[in-house]
Amino acid sequence: MTAPFDVAPLLAPGTPAPAVKWNGFPKYNFIGGHNDAKHVPVDALIEAATAVLKREGATLATYGLNSGPLGYRPLREFLADKLKGHAGIACSPDEILITSGSMQGLDLVNNLLLTRGDTVLIEQETYGGALTKLGRLGVNAVGIPLDGEGLRLDALQQKLEELKAKGVKPKYIYTIPTVQNPTGAIMGEARRKALLKLAAEHGVMIFEDECYSDLTWSGERPPSLYALAGGEGVIHIGSFSKSIAPALRVGYLVARWEVLSRILALKADAGSGSLEQMVLAEFCRRHFADHVPRLSKTLAGKLQVLREALAEQFGTAAEFGDPPGGIYLWIKLPDNVDTVKLAQAAQAAGVSLNPGPEWSTNKDYARCRLRLCFANPDPETIRQGVAVLADVCRREFGVPVRSANLDKA
Amino acid sequence: MTAPFDVAPLLAPGTPAPAVKWNGFPKYNFIGGHNDAKHVPVDALIEAATAVLKREGATLATYGLNSGPLGYRPLREFLADKLKGHAGIACSPDEILITSGSMQGLDLVNNLLLTRGDTVLIEQETYGGALTKLGRLGVNAVGIPLDGEGLRLDALQQKLEELKAKGVKPKYIYTIPTVQNPTGAIMGEARRKALLKLAAEHGVMIFEDECYSDLTWSGERPPSLYALAGGEGVIHIGSFSKSIAPALRVGYLVARWEVLSRILALKADAGSGSLEQMVLAEFCRRHFADHVPRLSKTLAGKLQVLREALAEQFGTAAEFGDPPGGIYLWIKLPDNVDTVKLAQAAQAAGVSLNPGPEWSTNKDYARCRLRLCFANPDPETIRQGVAVLADVCRREFGVPVRSANLDKA
Repeated sequence: MTAPFDVAPLLAPGTPAPAVKWNGFPKYNFIGGHNDAKHVPVDALIEAATAVLKREGATLATYGLNSGPLGYRPLREFLADKLKGHAGIACSPDEILITSGSMQGLDLVNNLLLTRGDTVLIEQETYGGALTKLGRLGVNAVGIPLDGEGLRLDALQQKLEELKAKGVKPKYIYTIPTVQNPTGAIMGEARRKALLKLAAEHGVMIFEDECYSDLTWSGERPPSLYALAGGEGVIHIGSFSKSIAPALRVGYLVARWEVLSRILALKADAGSGSLEQMVLAEFCRRHFADHVPRLSKTLAGKLQVLREALAEQFGTAAEFGDPPGGIYLWIKLPDNVDTVKLAQAAQAAGVSLNPGPEWSTNKDYARCRLRLCFANPDPETIRQGVAVLADVCRREFGVPVRSANLDKA
Repeated sequence: MTAPFDVAPLLAPGTPAPAVKWNGFPKYNFIGGHNDAKHVPVDALIEAATAVLKREGATLATYGLNSGPLGYRPLREFLADKLKGHAGIACSPDEILITSGSMQGLDLVNNLLLTRGDTVLIEQETYGGALTKLGRLGVNAVGIPLDGEGLRLDALQQKLEELKAKGVKPKYIYTIPTVQNPTGAIMGEARRKALLKLAAEHGVMIFEDECYSDLTWSGERPPSLYALAGGEGVIHIGSFSKSIAPALRVGYLVARWEVLSRILALKADAGSGSLEQMVLAEFCRRHFADHVPRLSKTLAGKLQVLREALAEQFGTAAEFGDPPGGIYLWIKLPDNVDTVKLAQAAQAAGVSLNPGPEWSTNKDYARCRLRLCFANPDPETIRQGVAVLADVCRREFGVPVRSANLDKA
């Protein structure tokens, strides 16, 4: 009965390699969308949980509470208000679907539109998780180069025409127009309008990911693509992971009902977790508007700590900008640095980082680039981690040659 | 910019029909795994949320809290204890994966093992959601007839040999051995052992779904298949939806690490909702053992109300058993009744039910059968709903001919 059973012959083709055992977070944690632990609004969440459970806890006895499969209605009502003020989106609560994190939003849109062999257009540097999902689906993700304002429309137009000449119709253009991941770029309103025009001309859907858009230092941002298009031809996703807490897996998807009803039919999960939705709705109604600027201020400070530490430890060997928001910095090291190898060596020294090639469709271009997330470590840990990283990089690749105070050549 | 955009030409092949708008629950709600609203332990959940957030709320700042991708460790520790006592399973917390409801467990196992054209064996009458998922994946679900103890092994053996002769190797045998859905049958220990032997001989995995196994009237149940096999060749899933509250989307999957590590690699969702896991762990440690028998007692009472109402309203026209647990009753009506048509007519009268063909691979056999869930409506609503259903059935199909008190022929 207990003879060993070999599952290998039964596996579906193309299943990924087994996961490795988790051994805790690294000492210097510069990966993942983790956030600042001091800014989790614990007391207000307790207050919200108490109030909403007292009032509506018995509704947990039914799937979807009393709100149906789109998700807890007061949360959708809060979002409709927030999206109107923040992103300029005029939508009803019934055009919003609550998802189990924006990751589920990505999966749902991919399930709606994509089949093996399809082509999509994507920012050349982009969220690694999106690239992984597309790879697993057997979809051809064509990267479009970026500039300081995000997606380069000249390159996009050229690629669209090239594909058209080959008879290939891409399914969607995936873009993170507000606080682009990993570059932090914000696309201006004029380019947004031109992008929509181009996409409409080619009959290509726009897939707008606004997971980071709440975190701009100024608190301002251009109208979303969804808003500018009146919802036509655009699917919009967002999340509370970056603005409240990533371990709450609550995201949302906005689309016109013609599209949303098809996505809802694919969401065969009996609903997303209701307690998190209830607590978030109760919290956000009272505190979201005050909470986010406080968090952003701390994050803006951590970004400057990271930039200063990089300048101090790497000197001119590290090139980077000064993004107007977000939780990450995109960095170029000298051409001889292979950041995949750097990441392996750094891991052994307790520093985790995202090597550029995992965050780009252009592996050569990204070879010497990396992403560092700065939201989770405290300022002193950021400084120490960058110093350790510089030591590892020097040992492995001979750069940085000198630090600010000491010639190590 | 706002010209209408037609998404139809971009859709992936085989996407399901759009969802219809949700218009609230029906008056007589006999479908879905909804539970008894009075038994949602609201005060204890508030207490649990307060305690766990106060103690560990700041850990929400990191994906997976401090527990890694398998899920909140104290919940996995509770489950390891509970499964040992309840189902006889000896496993470590690192052989348990917390999922977003057991629906995600179904999806993960299907993703691990199945590809279009594959064959699986499944109980002829079974959970409709499992059948729908298999249909969407293009998998051939071969039904095995049931008897009062569940899966009939003579029929299973015959089918396994038939398939072997054709060169077809089924990927798994999906079974709900403890409080079978929809029949409520509990498979005895001897048959469990024989089933494992048969599966091992044919190199077929067992996929054991124990979503309802907490709800037996006696509080007892045979050891799980996973326990009897020492985990070899078995994947086990379960849920808190039926024992605590369905709107909490927390399920779990138990497998040996060789299998679990492959499933974990497929769970690309950045973790399941952590607040629900934290609150459940805190609640369950103190209250699970007392809560479940109280809930079961109420459910056992509602089952008898339903059985009495059916006897009163349908007389001998309705045939059904007296299941030893669960939240549903499987009913046979006279052969001329088409329960798909009955469900449509009943819906218009405010009664929702699961027509048999949606819960069976044998559409002819199930044509005159239906499933009624009794956990959600209160006793008086059960009585009224059954009376309305009898009226609709009489109008549409001429049966039941007479009720207990009045000849309606």
